[in-house]
Amino acid sequence: MIYLDNNATTKIAQRVYYKQCEALHKYYGNPSSLYPFGTLVREKINEAREKVARLINANLVSKDKIIFTSCATESNNTVFSSVLLGKKNKRRVVISSVEHPSVMESAARLESQGCTVIRVPVNLDGVLDEQYLYSAITDDTALVSIMLANNETGVIFPIQRITSKIKKIWPEVFVHTDAVQAIGKINVDVKALGVDFLTISGHKFCAPKGVGALFISSNVNIPPFIIGGHQESNMRAGTENTASIIVMGDAAQFAMENLENGVTDKVCKLRDLLEAQISSIFSDIMIFGKAAPRVCNTSNISFKGWVGEKLVLKLAAKEICVSSGSACSSNSKTLSYVLEAMNAPADYASSIRISFGYENTENDILSIVEALKFIILNQNVYAN
Amino acid sequence: MIYLDNNATTKIAQRVYYKQCEALHKYYGNPSSLYPFGTLVREKINEAREKVARLINANLVSKDKIIFTSCATESNNTVFSSVLLGKKNKRRVVISSVEHPSVMESAARLESQGCTVIRVPVNLDGVLDEQYLYSAITDDTALVSIMLANNETGVIFPIQRITSKIKKIWPEVFVHTDAVQAIGKINVDVKALGVDFLTISGHKFCAPKGVGALFISSNVNIPPFIIGGHQESNMRAGTENTASIIVMGDAAQFAMENLENGVTDKVCKLRDLLEAQISSIFSDIMIFGKAAPRVCNTSNISFKGWVGEKLVLKLAAKEICVSSGSACSSNSKTLSYVLEAMNAPADYASSIRISFGYENTENDILSIVEALKFIILNQNVYAN
Repeated sequence: MIYLDNNATTKIAQRVYYKQCEALHKYYGNPSSLYPFGTLVREKINEAREKVARLINANLVSKDKIIFTSCATESNNTVFSSVLLGKKNKRRVVISSVEHPSVMESAARLESQGCTVIRVPVNLDGVLDEQYLYSAITDDTALVSIMLANNETGVIFPIQRITSKIKKIWPEVFVHTDAVQAIGKINVDVKALGVDFLTISGHKFCAPKGVGALFISSNVNIPPFIIGGHQESNMRAGTENTASIIVMGDAAQFAMENLENGVTDKVCKLRDLLEAQISSIFSDIMIFGKAAPRVCNTSNISFKGWVGEKLVLKLAAKEICVSSGSACSSNSKTLSYVLEAMNAPADYASSIRISFGYENTENDILSIVEALKFIILNQNVYAN
Repeated sequence: MIYLDNNATTKIAQRVYYKQCEALHKYYGNPSSLYPFGTLVREKINEAREKVARLINANLVSKDKIIFTSCATESNNTVFSSVLLGKKNKRRVVISSVEHPSVMESAARLESQGCTVIRVPVNLDGVLDEQYLYSAITDDTALVSIMLANNETGVIFPIQRITSKIKKIWPEVFVHTDAVQAIGKINVDVKALGVDFLTISGHKFCAPKGVGALFISSNVNIPPFIIGGHQESNMRAGTENTASIIVMGDAAQFAMENLENGVTDKVCKLRDLLEAQISSIFSDIMIFGKAAPRVCNTSNISFKGWVGEKLVLKLAAKEICVSSGSACSSNSKTLSYVLEAMNAPADYASSIRISFGYENTENDILSIVEALKFIILNQNVYAN
């Protein structure tokens, strides 16, 4: 099997896997318990918290918070459910039109409760209309939530510039970024970004599924979303997913090492090789986001007239895993709302997303290119 | 180490542990993906759903729902956050005064939003005042939430009788039971209980921490709590905690086998042996809930004048793990609200909870009894 769907989820890194099995076996105490077998687990969780903090340059000593959650979707729900509670006169929220569904639907829920939600458009390259964004912010704006990198195209949004401009004029507006698809692919520095909230998902950088985190800046206080326990400094009730939290710290360390050791450059070269090959072989294609700054591992390609799902299944028959749109929406079999927001031409409105991981090789590229040649060039008479 | 704190959390069963390591390694695909490596994981999750359904006699074919969550606290939050949304004229909620904090605080949150919350008292044996409960229900009652077994005392509440009486007079009132401390200790049958919602926690019956479930009866529809993804039939957004969900199914099967094979009877004998020994050695004690129906594994004992936390730490020094109150509150170092609700006499208002698992032996009993003799009888001059 050739796995090229690392934006949907990653394989647990081998060393993280061993630590996970160890943690499940050895550290089964409840971190809330008073005895050393419990406090040991609490310490391990706090070590993981420090490792995750280091990955994003959060400063726990100066009261930045890293709250472990069950997933990025929960982290995003937490921000949207909690941030307006203390701001009764601020009922306006600004997001991009290509956010993850957990942000899109959380914003829509606020809208149904009487808030105004502004969705900032992107252009055909996936680039955010920044002027639209700034003009959308008013004195009653509570929250701006713009993702750091888009899950379908990999396009990076200029959060540092956006936050800096917003905070200068509207220092009370909270800025949140869903950094799920950026972590481990580019340097993510909450101090440089200047955000109040940042969402992380473990399984997108080689930790297991079922664990996420929310960074909350030291200057911010919000009530918890899930209540009924003192865990996570009263910010997230419920017995902690101990083993997965512990190894999310190891995965964070692994991600930092990969960034430092140039593994992302290697991944970038694979992506460029793929796109060069595809561009030279196929004439009627579009590579979405190619003209914009992108994370190193994502390639979103439309083959004229081909429905993404069909290509996904034909590649799957050759044991190659890619996705159409995001994994979260691929099961719903609708066209991608991201490409729709980008105003993709009708003939190219469906695509496949190829997303690399650190384990992929040039051979994987050659295999998928061969497979696409076979499927599209030899069989296009049967297409659609 | 002698682990006698199985109500706080359990050690993963060995066979579940092996399956967890296998699942982490082999089934890392995203269950939402279209290709077989993803759909395989989706099938495994649905197999787990069937196993959990079997444990509680839910009928997935006739549209009962088992929704996997990150923990029982999330399951309880889901019920309380969602159940009133469709019932605008029903603003009354009835709970017991000894519910888990995730129910207590969820109810308090509704109270702060204008709902009426009635907290039904218990007596010194921990037995619920049923007449008080029935008289508290009015036509504007939306939800009754009474736990199946109390986490601190093990006292079992007569949910079957309660639900039957409620549904006869007020068929529209939803009944929820937090069954976290009952699963694996007594037969739990949602059909017999007649409840609309039932909460489960994996790590209380030898599955890992970080996974729970919510049973929702076929006749009930509520909106999701965590939104922004189609997972769990649109009832719980967020990439699934796949490996833990898969092995929660195995843990459910293990729990069923233990119930069928009389393992709980063995555990019951250990508990009875402990209480007989303690009663014969110590004169000034109270065993809370002893006169009431209790789950097989829980013993809540107060030694006159001894603060529970102190005993917990002294036992910990002898490598024996027990708790004072629930693990969720033990870290907060306040007196138990459960014993307070039971009107425990001042001299006995602090206790230790000893909770057995299927791996405990008679030797563990003898060890803790010896330790308590040493701590209390030889050193009581230093007490408090």
